[in-house]
Amino acid sequence: MKFVTATNENGNQFVGVVVDEKVIDLKKLDELQNGTSYLPNTLIECIEQGDQFLNKVNELTATFQKNGEYAEAVYSMNEIELAAPIPVPRKNIFCVGKNYREHAIEMGSEADIPTEIIIFTKAPTTVNGPNKPVPNHKTITDQLDYEGELAIVIGKKGKGIKEEDALDYVFGYTIINDITARDIQRRHKQYFLGKSLDGTCPMGPWIVHKSEIPNPNALHIETKVNGEVRQSSSTELLIFPIEQVISIISRGMTLEPGDIIATGTPAGVGKGFKPPRFLKSGDEIEITIDKIGTLVNRIE
Amino acid sequence: MKFVTATNENGNQFVGVVVDEKVIDLKKLDELQNGTSYLPNTLIECIEQGDQFLNKVNELTATFQKNGEYAEAVYSMNEIELAAPIPVPRKNIFCVGKNYREHAIEMGSEADIPTEIIIFTKAPTTVNGPNKPVPNHKTITDQLDYEGELAIVIGKKGKGIKEEDALDYVFGYTIINDITARDIQRRHKQYFLGKSLDGTCPMGPWIVHKSEIPNPNALHIETKVNGEVRQSSSTELLIFPIEQVISIISRGMTLEPGDIIATGTPAGVGKGFKPPRFLKSGDEIEITIDKIGTLVNRIE
Repeated sequence: MKFVTATNENGNQFVGVVVDEKVIDLKKLDELQNGTSYLPNTLIECIEQGDQFLNKVNELTATFQKNGEYAEAVYSMNEIELAAPIPVPRKNIFCVGKNYREHAIEMGSEADIPTEIIIFTKAPTTVNGPNKPVPNHKTITDQLDYEGELAIVIGKKGKGIKEEDALDYVFGYTIINDITARDIQRRHKQYFLGKSLDGTCPMGPWIVHKSEIPNPNALHIETKVNGEVRQSSSTELLIFPIEQVISIISRGMTLEPGDIIATGTPAGVGKGFKPPRFLKSGDEIEITIDKIGTLVNRIE
Repeated sequence: MKFVTATNENGNQFVGVVVDEKVIDLKKLDELQNGTSYLPNTLIECIEQGDQFLNKVNELTATFQKNGEYAEAVYSMNEIELAAPIPVPRKNIFCVGKNYREHAIEMGSEADIPTEIIIFTKAPTTVNGPNKPVPNHKTITDQLDYEGELAIVIGKKGKGIKEEDALDYVFGYTIINDITARDIQRRHKQYFLGKSLDGTCPMGPWIVHKSEIPNPNALHIETKVNGEVRQSSSTELLIFPIEQVISIISRGMTLEPGDIIATGTPAGVGKGFKPPRFLKSGDEIEITIDKIGTLVNRIE
């Protein structure tokens, strides 16, 4: 099941699922089928409802697929505009730093391979939608760089989560482009400022429910810039796999439904080339992850 | 004007102002005076309303002070329980690292005095109220440390804010205890994890409106542990004063109403002593800042 946040032809944002390349407005479908709907208006609130939400979606889509009616609640992809699946997170996005060996080396040397997990954050104001332009921020940086990453979306509140239970706390997975101003990142030591320029966290195109990805640690991940492959790796190379990331972060901190954790980027970022190949206006970045899809954005 | 979030005898949370050591429930006062109230339920939403909210508060309290009635909306301090003034921020708390020269030195050496601002964040799940116990997290750290800090609360959305305009974007000021697990902070390199244990961001006791603090860069700040003075300094010693903090953060990132920026801690943290004097269960930390008040918390 692919969950989206999208805008319809009237500019109204809705929570939807993608079925057979069609986008279904869940609340509208519920109203058409049942006269009224108690579904919340945002995906984060839906995720908070846990199984109640998933059962409702299954019930709605089952009836829909049998009858094939309720056309008012169904859009083709070109009739809607996708937003980030969680357009307004309730806290900063958690990000794992240097979580692929070869990337840690390209950022410095073997000494940069972490023995303990590195976590930093991106402000919610960085969130950007699929196919949306990314501001070039050219007055403050000339070292904008891409980072294709698998992101975890938390589905259930938890603290002190054990590795063996970690996937129970996942709602699903999405793609994040952790766009980074390398000059600002370096200058201010702590990564936050260089990672938090407005619009530098494209996310999407949707959240794939975890039931479709039984093993998140075996997904091919590829990033292209203007059609040229720059990053090509697999989440099986994560230094700290998904379960460990969740377990370590939650040791002393409560994770909550809707929390987003970007799991780190593989080798092949612009800074890793000699000379570096930073992003310039007009560049198109395309990140593809197995079983999820492709996230495309262009630098303004 | 001191703005609080508090809980009344029925366990209901409300937004209030402190007048003559009494706490006035603004929404209830509005209902008593006017029959109904359109005031929002949370302080962050009130702050978003800008002058409309301030005008409403002035109108309500003026009538109240003239008439001295509406007792139902008025509490003495011991009838209510204070929460953090913004109990659920919409994003992580921004924090400035090493913003006092002597503190930078006590954390390492003269080489640690920053030439460029250092910004990291604390998760919203760290927020804790005045007089509330702080979890000791003893299963994961034995180096819990205090950091008394002046915090800025943003009142108006802005990006690329000039230093000379920065104070226009401030709603008011409060006190934050940026409690830090030094071992976790050091082990994970980026500060976030060591700064984000649940309950390690006591905040309050209230937000003082900026009109009462025309110069935030000249406030005495003092931290006591079990009555012993540990930190005693002034915000005039900030390496990056309030206006610069706001200006630099907003260069590439939009600041929003309700954003909270802790401006850094002066010398005298536990880690700075030889041997270090970390917090232990039962310790009481008291942070006092001129024109604001005192924030008191005890380690569980």
